[in-house]
Amino acid sequence: MALRKLASNWGGALALGLCLAGPVPVAMAQEKPAAAAIENRVENFTLANGLQVVVIPDRRAPVVTHMLWYKIGSADEAPGKSGIAHFFEHLMFKGTSNHKAGEFSAAVAAIGGSENAFTSYDYTAFFQQVSPDALETMMGFEADRMRNLVLTDAVIGPERDVILEERRMRIEGDPSALLQEEMSATLYQNHPYRIPVIGWMQEMEELNRADAIDFYNRYYAPNNAVLVVAGDVDVAGVKALAEKTYGKVERGPDLPPRVRPQEPEQNTSRTVSMSDPRVTIPSYQKSWVVPSYGSAKKVPGQAEALDLLAEVLGGGARSRLYQALVVKEKLAASVGSYYQGTALDASSFTVYGSPIGETKLETLEKAVDAEIARLVKDGIGDQELERAKNRLVRGLIFARDNQSGMARIYGSTLTTGGEIKDIEEWPERIKALTAADIQRAATEFLNQKRAVSSYLLPAGEEKS
Amino acid sequence: MALRKLASNWGGALALGLCLAGPVPVAMAQEKPAAAAIENRVENFTLANGLQVVVIPDRRAPVVTHMLWYKIGSADEAPGKSGIAHFFEHLMFKGTSNHKAGEFSAAVAAIGGSENAFTSYDYTAFFQQVSPDALETMMGFEADRMRNLVLTDAVIGPERDVILEERRMRIEGDPSALLQEEMSATLYQNHPYRIPVIGWMQEMEELNRADAIDFYNRYYAPNNAVLVVAGDVDVAGVKALAEKTYGKVERGPDLPPRVRPQEPEQNTSRTVSMSDPRVTIPSYQKSWVVPSYGSAKKVPGQAEALDLLAEVLGGGARSRLYQALVVKEKLAASVGSYYQGTALDASSFTVYGSPIGETKLETLEKAVDAEIARLVKDGIGDQELERAKNRLVRGLIFARDNQSGMARIYGSTLTTGGEIKDIEEWPERIKALTAADIQRAATEFLNQKRAVSSYLLPAGEEKS
Repeated sequence: MALRKLASNWGGALALGLCLAGPVPVAMAQEKPAAAAIENRVENFTLANGLQVVVIPDRRAPVVTHMLWYKIGSADEAPGKSGIAHFFEHLMFKGTSNHKAGEFSAAVAAIGGSENAFTSYDYTAFFQQVSPDALETMMGFEADRMRNLVLTDAVIGPERDVILEERRMRIEGDPSALLQEEMSATLYQNHPYRIPVIGWMQEMEELNRADAIDFYNRYYAPNNAVLVVAGDVDVAGVKALAEKTYGKVERGPDLPPRVRPQEPEQNTSRTVSMSDPRVTIPSYQKSWVVPSYGSAKKVPGQAEALDLLAEVLGGGARSRLYQALVVKEKLAASVGSYYQGTALDASSFTVYGSPIGETKLETLEKAVDAEIARLVKDGIGDQELERAKNRLVRGLIFARDNQSGMARIYGSTLTTGGEIKDIEEWPERIKALTAADIQRAATEFLNQKRAVSSYLLPAGEEKS
Repeated sequence: MALRKLASNWGGALALGLCLAGPVPVAMAQEKPAAAAIENRVENFTLANGLQVVVIPDRRAPVVTHMLWYKIGSADEAPGKSGIAHFFEHLMFKGTSNHKAGEFSAAVAAIGGSENAFTSYDYTAFFQQVSPDALETMMGFEADRMRNLVLTDAVIGPERDVILEERRMRIEGDPSALLQEEMSATLYQNHPYRIPVIGWMQEMEELNRADAIDFYNRYYAPNNAVLVVAGDVDVAGVKALAEKTYGKVERGPDLPPRVRPQEPEQNTSRTVSMSDPRVTIPSYQKSWVVPSYGSAKKVPGQAEALDLLAEVLGGGARSRLYQALVVKEKLAASVGSYYQGTALDASSFTVYGSPIGETKLETLEKAVDAEIARLVKDGIGDQELERAKNRLVRGLIFARDNQSGMARIYGSTLTTGGEIKDIEEWPERIKALTAADIQRAATEFLNQKRAVSSYLLPAGEEKS
């Protein structure tokens, strides 16, 4: 779940957005005082065709966020077909048998709304933010493209050129993105989280119409989707509109459980290094494969402990790493840690940093390692624990104040094996953690003998 | 092809044998003087059911090597089913509807023959070495188990315990094997050569009867196999026996081309490190993904240049690395290079070494890197080139003297995309290489910015 991290991770390593529109105008939802945060009366129901619907009432402004989430992401792709999930996100903006390409986007723009879409390892989502009276129109368009896309070669070829260009721009042209790809391919030895969401170039080049049609027919169906509607609406109204629009879409094939190849036990420490003339300040990150909220279900509190550990260690300006290495020792320009908890399968915990002034990257890395070792050896005190819990839980309260942020929390949780009650009970589960839980998580998971480090270095500075 | 390397690589990283019997008694084939090496009248034909048959006459002793090769290896396994190819090699020694388990092996032993089987990334093979009058019996047994295995849960369960124990013994109990696995998983970022032939433990544990039956029905068929018969036989005789035995087996389903996910362009240098109390002397290896004979077909001479480069650089006691670092500078206890050329897809080129006395591993690695840099910068002289060619081609002449070695060369070549003429023309292709070809291969492929190094270290000696 990693509720507070959602905002910062969004659009980062895990998610790959089409970014058709600019950032969501969250200011719209903040016209009323923040104190009147979104009420916790989230409701949900399932249509006869299997579409799960979640309604998050938020009456502070005449705005509605309409998000359709599919339980399909890059980690579900067939071998050799990397990039098809993201490619399909693009294809969803093409014409259907009822609407020409661009008609949906034009309709959103015409009423001053915004829209976006993104693909991640575990899900693909599409959303619009509009005034409530346009909700039915949005639902109509979204339900239409769930089944009625026209996928001809004339559509496929040019759009494939677009994703290839997107890869060239966003990955090939950016040393840190290239490094991140090979870092993931090294960190995960077996799980498809190792494969980039955008796909490997040589496989993207071969994606074709048959692949697209197979993918569409298999995964784009109401029984493989979650609709999240947040905003100035009521459940009865949403249900009536959903029945009228999505309700007409036929159920798709029953899909087998989402079982992907899992990580083996890891026994080595690894490094991944790149030097490039475009890099001016060196930086590094060190990651471990750890349980996610999705994979840790059988061990209650394990994912929560990792979430809180990330907060304690490097979750912002009050964290140990920041206080020690930026404020006190002045070794780091930036330093921190984060936990990718919102995932169906075992995911990652990461520390990162960039040195300041004359400090060597190696010096900074050793100082970060020393902070981890100290936490493993001495644990944390009660006051530090309580403060970190408060910061982490407060993150959810802030997230609740953001309509589309809330919709994202529900959508990402429900498409990665979680349930609504997991979100509702999350603050209590964080509050129940003990100092021993945090120390145990650090000891068990932040083992240097299984760490994978990546180094982004200026030209000429090779990692020895 | 890497003809001379076949012997040393056999049973190594690439191949995983059942090792039912001890080493093949090659001395049997050497009773006559080596000068009378195997004649180059290799013939081949295909049965109506698609079985390709290669006959290598060798009349020096009353011995025949009967090898059946299937074009199925671990790199063909479905995601999450790692180990099924090797598991199936084991299952082939179970009972059929015509013969009880153990009957085939007992028949081989009763006549003083030997047998073995092995699984690799690209193929699975079964062989017996017996007197020629037993060839028909061998063919009968082998043809029988191609289609008539009895695969009940009572057979599957206990044999799965055997492969799990094999993994515990051969991999989990051996730090160098564990390191090699994670080295491969790091070197190959996308291709299934990254997955161990024996399988990941957690996937092996789940292999079941349905998996085995699917695998058998799909891949164990005459049209997916190559029969190699070497020894005191003639083509007409082999053909008659093959028709009488294998000829009765029905053709299997047509299989699609063996297209596996390919490697992306690599942009980083990587390290994989393990320290363990059982390690006394440190060692390292550095590998690159390079074209194989199978993948380099469109670039004539490319794989041959890599083969000769491996010979020049570290192919034995006359090589540059050995002469410089063992003989002259006395830095290395062992040092060398090898090329895994016999593969369907892009494979690897490796240098390796272990320091001697007080020499640090890092010092040795730098000295090896300096030898590579020297070769890239200055190339090689004509005399050194000719000597290396002679050594490499002489390797094939030695291999020809070994009946089962020859059968293995033909079997492995024909199951990795090669043809008989590729073997026959290989010496000429090596002789045609220039010094510039070798320098170009070193420059293009032995790039430190894309190298993957693994370090096996004594406890307490961590890689910085």
